[in-house]
Amino acid sequence: MNERLGTTFNKDNILVTHGSQQGLDLSGKVFLDDGDIVPCESPTYLAAISAFKSYGCSFIEIPTDENGMNMEALEEVLNSTENVKLIYVIPTFQNPTGKTWNLERPKKLTELSAKYNVAVVEDNPYNEFRFERETLPSIKSFDTAGNILCTGSFLIFCPGFQIGWITGDKDIIRKYVLVKQGTDLQCNTIAQMTIAEYLKRYDIDKHIRKIVKVYKKRRDITIKCMEHYFPDNIEFTRPEGGLFTWIELPEEISAREILSKCLERKITFVPCGSFFPNRNRENTFRINYSNMPEDRIDLGNCDWNIYGRFYYFSGFIGYLLLAYYLVKYPLNWS
Amino acid sequence: MNERLGTTFNKDNILVTHGSQQGLDLSGKVFLDDGDIVPCESPTYLAAISAFKSYGCSFIEIPTDENGMNMEALEEVLNSTENVKLIYVIPTFQNPTGKTWNLERPKKLTELSAKYNVAVVEDNPYNEFRFERETLPSIKSFDTAGNILCTGSFLIFCPGFQIGWITGDKDIIRKYVLVKQGTDLQCNTIAQMTIAEYLKRYDIDKHIRKIVKVYKKRRDITIKCMEHYFPDNIEFTRPEGGLFTWIELPEEISAREILSKCLERKITFVPCGSFFPNRNRENTFRINYSNMPEDRIDLGNCDWNIYGRFYYFSGFIGYLLLAYYLVKYPLNWS
Repeated sequence: MNERLGTTFNKDNILVTHGSQQGLDLSGKVFLDDGDIVPCESPTYLAAISAFKSYGCSFIEIPTDENGMNMEALEEVLNSTENVKLIYVIPTFQNPTGKTWNLERPKKLTELSAKYNVAVVEDNPYNEFRFERETLPSIKSFDTAGNILCTGSFLIFCPGFQIGWITGDKDIIRKYVLVKQGTDLQCNTIAQMTIAEYLKRYDIDKHIRKIVKVYKKRRDITIKCMEHYFPDNIEFTRPEGGLFTWIELPEEISAREILSKCLERKITFVPCGSFFPNRNRENTFRINYSNMPEDRIDLGNCDWNIYGRFYYFSGFIGYLLLAYYLVKYPLNWS
Repeated sequence: MNERLGTTFNKDNILVTHGSQQGLDLSGKVFLDDGDIVPCESPTYLAAISAFKSYGCSFIEIPTDENGMNMEALEEVLNSTENVKLIYVIPTFQNPTGKTWNLERPKKLTELSAKYNVAVVEDNPYNEFRFERETLPSIKSFDTAGNILCTGSFLIFCPGFQIGWITGDKDIIRKYVLVKQGTDLQCNTIAQMTIAEYLKRYDIDKHIRKIVKVYKKRRDITIKCMEHYFPDNIEFTRPEGGLFTWIELPEEISAREILSKCLERKITFVPCGSFFPNRNRENTFRINYSNMPEDRIDLGNCDWNIYGRFYYFSGFIGYLLLAYYLVKYPLNWS
């Protein structure tokens, strides 16, 4: 793990959690009280918003571009806002956008965290699912003040085990341990033993290479289809790894409406309005390509434009596209 | 489950949790805010205190005797106290005392809960570990107002899986579901599938009879040894089931001191001062007999009184007794 994250942890720096989501919930319990403020990317992970919100905090969305969170905007907030107790970021293959920070911003965030003495939770569950280029060092690897926590999970082993981890300075992790005792006593020991035994007996890197190949292929098909079929007014990210791509429709089109049309055809995705903690942007949604067999991503058997307009769609992208037209030109479709 | 608890639940009444401890933590999240009050038995389960306390509540200890919580005392508290949001009880083989409520008090508690419109969390993880007499109906089975939640776990299957459940009125359980999503998304699916498959393929009642036989034997030996060897000024409970017996020393003797003497000989138990939320009673401790092989419970090979005084002890009870004398008569022992 140290090798993957560029860190030097020992066992006092790590707590095994009930999935990386528990790392977020415990972070809320350790750091947040009523009235506290959490700066985060805009948009950010929906279930982190729920986890933190339950401790009474509110959020300031920091503008975020292709290279990550805007550090000038963050510093302005840190400079002018009381009660900032935690900064929450997902620097690698972000959920929901699939975007990845560049190398400079993690360094700058570490500086700001030290300067303003604010904890950072770096949520990093998708780190190993990289399809191209080199793995970047974690934000935690630049930390000298001991303010940065990093969470992740054993998603790379197999989903459903709900075994994750949070790492950080040993005095902070000690607090997490105490708080976790009141929450659930311990994690599933049998699941931990299973994973430990797997790691001992088999080559996890080989396993990762295998699933990365599958996910990469699905991403490639998804992106290719979207490039080919989507109208110009639909924008989307081209992630270098992870599980998601993020789609922006023209502002007047609601992803929820598109979803309701897709659901009639048993196709689903996540509309992302609620990934913006303060103001919903309902024209956005997230596609998870990792869980979709290749032959269901495409348009399938499509009698394309047979009567001078779209006639028959199938497949994931096909239904999305159909739904888009059903919403955009409601009178032209039956 | 309905048969065991005397209830009529369907799937909307139940939420699978990460061990029954998570049921307690989620109860705190759903019901408690800063300044709220939780009446509970005295003593009560330490980790429930931690779970609830983290949401800012405080506790009123209700006097508790051989037949359960004193209902007159509880009503007086409900009558005179604002912000009582939750009553917490462990009516069967209580942790830490091993005591079980009689049949009347659950009915009375249900009435009070309806009259004062206060939720009750009935913590019931040991219900199946009954060594003698009939299983009593759960408090939940008397509930008509829908105020009572009941938690339990699959301890009966095997420890370490951390799969539990909480049941209640479907509108309340819906709130628990939403709160749980922010906490950990879901429980370990593989553990749930394993348990479901076990329940389908094998006879869980046969399995329970098997472990109950083992635990009963260990309880019997523990009680027999304590009756035989303990001085008259040490009191203890004779539980009808469950995993624990509870020991009260003379007031001037601290269980923590006895523990430190036992630890030198690699024997441990739980001193119970902190099971009293408001004032520690340090002369109490809890023995867990379920986890101790029979031949280690007894005094072992004991050269009893060979030089006119206790000379050599081994075994769990033996070390406890030695430690007691080391603390009580520190000058007479080396």
